[in-house]
Amino acid sequence: MLSKNKIKLIRSLDLKKSRRATGLFIAEGEKLVTDLIQSGIEISEVLCVESLAKDIKRYNSTLQVEIVTKNELERISFLKSPSDIVAICKIPEAVIDWAKIQKELTLVLDEIQDPGNLGTIVRVADWFGIRTIICSENCADLYNPKVVQSTMGALSRVKVSYLPLIEFLTLAKQQNIPIYGAYLEGENLYNCKLTENGLLVVGNEGNGISETIAPFISKKLNIPSYPIGVATSESLNVASATSIIVAEFRSRVEKNK
Amino acid sequence: MLSKNKIKLIRSLDLKKSRRATGLFIAEGEKLVTDLIQSGIEISEVLCVESLAKDIKRYNSTLQVEIVTKNELERISFLKSPSDIVAICKIPEAVIDWAKIQKELTLVLDEIQDPGNLGTIVRVADWFGIRTIICSENCADLYNPKVVQSTMGALSRVKVSYLPLIEFLTLAKQQNIPIYGAYLEGENLYNCKLTENGLLVVGNEGNGISETIAPFISKKLNIPSYPIGVATSESLNVASATSIIVAEFRSRVEKNK
Repeated sequence: MLSKNKIKLIRSLDLKKSRRATGLFIAEGEKLVTDLIQSGIEISEVLCVESLAKDIKRYNSTLQVEIVTKNELERISFLKSPSDIVAICKIPEAVIDWAKIQKELTLVLDEIQDPGNLGTIVRVADWFGIRTIICSENCADLYNPKVVQSTMGALSRVKVSYLPLIEFLTLAKQQNIPIYGAYLEGENLYNCKLTENGLLVVGNEGNGISETIAPFISKKLNIPSYPIGVATSESLNVASATSIIVAEFRSRVEKNK
Repeated sequence: MLSKNKIKLIRSLDLKKSRRATGLFIAEGEKLVTDLIQSGIEISEVLCVESLAKDIKRYNSTLQVEIVTKNELERISFLKSPSDIVAICKIPEAVIDWAKIQKELTLVLDEIQDPGNLGTIVRVADWFGIRTIICSENCADLYNPKVVQSTMGALSRVKVSYLPLIEFLTLAKQQNIPIYGAYLEGENLYNCKLTENGLLVVGNEGNGISETIAPFISKKLNIPSYPIGVATSESLNVASATSIIVAEFRSRVEKNK
């Protein structure tokens, strides 16, 4: 039977300060939980109905699994329709793998505020094989239960780290890593030379890339509106802009082969 | 002073059934309301603080404008930070302009459920000069106050109509209008010939394009994941996919010039 303390712990993980204090987050649903188990993210404990317990142990026999009832799952779930399985997971530590970043395309999120946009961007990264996302410390929190669910498993394949951006970009610049930025002004994306590796910085929903970050950008990319030169819309949604630019990076790699 | 009945009417427009019954929707904020006034959408009445009334009359001297206090605006606003102006607008009637549709790129939304996705797609359409969106009758409602605000004025420039899709697509097919569909399987977007005109159909978040709509699609488009052939992610968010495909249509037009 689920202890009161465990129920209290799980319910508290809705709040960022509790996630920070405990270093834990919650994931729900069979597909997401098995994706996370296989991804190497540390799982503190799995709570599930009896019929799933055996299957889950097959992925990793050392997993701590507690069998709970449907009623108990309803009490701890953050979902409208509670699933049969909940995992208490450890938030991975921020690690920078410079060897990877030097060779690959990496996303850098500067003050993305909307959790929905963050979830969408992580899914886009996953689709296009981006394995690293660096977030400024004031970005929306990936480990919010709603964002975790909205990434649909993408967070098991994309490594997201929260870091002081200025320090990170200073080190990237010293290593001559190209730093692209998504801007409303800037060079037409389709006329730019795009490298296979590099950082793509996208900025806040209302204000774009911060003033303190702008000096690090080596190439400003602009998605031309259509018809070209006739600007009507204020701006694209940041997740739309990220999708378009990343897709263009990837299609270019194929064309250049 | 705002009458109780008017307050009641405005507050009721949060609900789809009230919007259907009255044919009205609410827009808030100076930029959005002036965009709508200039767009030709019929405005039933504008409620604003005294300092704005003159400016608003300048756009259209026949507008019915009622001066209200900040307190009154707080009572009717659907926003967290109420603005100085609210417009009661008439939902435009669904009209199909076949001459336009034959020449231009048009979006067709099949059962898009999430209001956030709908708002994002309307903004993407606006950015890329798409002037017509046809929605299936079971799509999320554009005139929900949250969606209206999230489009940031795009709904003043993009004509969105709710129609029975099968009838619409039957007529389009009879006129030999190309009908593209966004699919998880299908031809690689970057290898496809894309015409300047045509319909682009995008489907429901969970299920994609409906079975009843599929037979109308003349070309299935697929956004290749990366690295090509290594599928990890389940799917792209529908607004991301729409952004990428529309951007590719528009960049192709420029390249072919």
